[in-house]
Amino acid sequence: MSYNILSLDNLIDQFAMIPGVGRKSAQRMAFYIINLSFEDAKIFSDAIIDAKKRIKKCKICQNISDTDECSICLSKTRDKSIICVVQDPKDLLAFERTGEYNGLYHVLHGLISPLDGVAPEDLSIKELLLRLSDETVKEVIMATNPTIEGEATAMYISKLIKPLNIKVTRLAYGIPVGGNLEYADDLTLNRALEGRCEI
Amino acid sequence: MSYNILSLDNLIDQFAMIPGVGRKSAQRMAFYIINLSFEDAKIFSDAIIDAKKRIKKCKICQNISDTDECSICLSKTRDKSIICVVQDPKDLLAFERTGEYNGLYHVLHGLISPLDGVAPEDLSIKELLLRLSDETVKEVIMATNPTIEGEATAMYISKLIKPLNIKVTRLAYGIPVGGNLEYADDLTLNRALEGRCEI
Repeated sequence: MSYNILSLDNLIDQFAMIPGVGRKSAQRMAFYIINLSFEDAKIFSDAIIDAKKRIKKCKICQNISDTDECSICLSKTRDKSIICVVQDPKDLLAFERTGEYNGLYHVLHGLISPLDGVAPEDLSIKELLLRLSDETVKEVIMATNPTIEGEATAMYISKLIKPLNIKVTRLAYGIPVGGNLEYADDLTLNRALEGRCEI
Repeated sequence: MSYNILSLDNLIDQFAMIPGVGRKSAQRMAFYIINLSFEDAKIFSDAIIDAKKRIKKCKICQNISDTDECSICLSKTRDKSIICVVQDPKDLLAFERTGEYNGLYHVLHGLISPLDGVAPEDLSIKELLLRLSDETVKEVIMATNPTIEGEATAMYISKLIKPLNIKVTRLAYGIPVGGNLEYADDLTLNRALEGRCEI
């Protein structure tokens, strides 16, 4: 059952196309828009066009940026000998939040997933290999998610990098800090045991 | 921590202002927009402006409509002697979905709530009383939500209508169909007992 108001149904459809937004939530959002002042609705509408117009991928690391090269790649204080490979900009931000990592990044914009029709060519792997062609980079950290697709992508890329004589590492697996052993899954516990170190 | 990309942060802010949308969800939505083609982003942006431009309130029942008077108020087959008063257009749609109700509606666009600063003047009560001034309407059904604000609003309006010699009714309280007595709250059970009828 729809409202039979074309412009409203249309707006609900647009919101409902956002992944993770159901029909009910889309309705709620459309009503929020309708109850805005015209000026505020215009600001919302312009923000969409503006973001879409300005945001592009950094030529070097493929992270989103409103300049040709992003501020991390251009930074003079960053350690250019190490590249952390992540799935998407949100993961990059997670590392930046820690404030501990001072190297560069490379954003893949996805993971290899034959079931979803994502092939290696669809990711920015070519661009990564290009960055490794001079001898600046000494280490590549594979920081994809610890899922089947994340692991497969990390393996695929590390096999391509190995011949270049560059160290390839991956994030440590283990019990999350503050986590509870009782609720840890078997695989994580196994990995934590395997990766144990002396204290 | 933000992305330090003005247009992206701006878009995230816009999504995050929608009630019920948190920062993380807003980020996800903004990324959905960025990954759209420019044409699709334009369609989304236009849908907002278009809905805002076209949708107004029906002059009679105050329901949202893209015409001056909505299709329900204009319908020749509707029973014009009965008005169902609801909080918002979503509630109206819920009744329409049943296909059982054939009267008219009146949409209040809110409930009286002193804590939230919503006074009776902020609702379309004036417009409702105006509709009751000729002798067409024989019954007004108060179909506000069974919450404190909903009850208070129903009481307030019914006191205004009583002197006009029009029947004022409210929805029946009771156990929801398919519900479980074990999990029904005390108040609902009490109301269901009070409202019991012979079989």
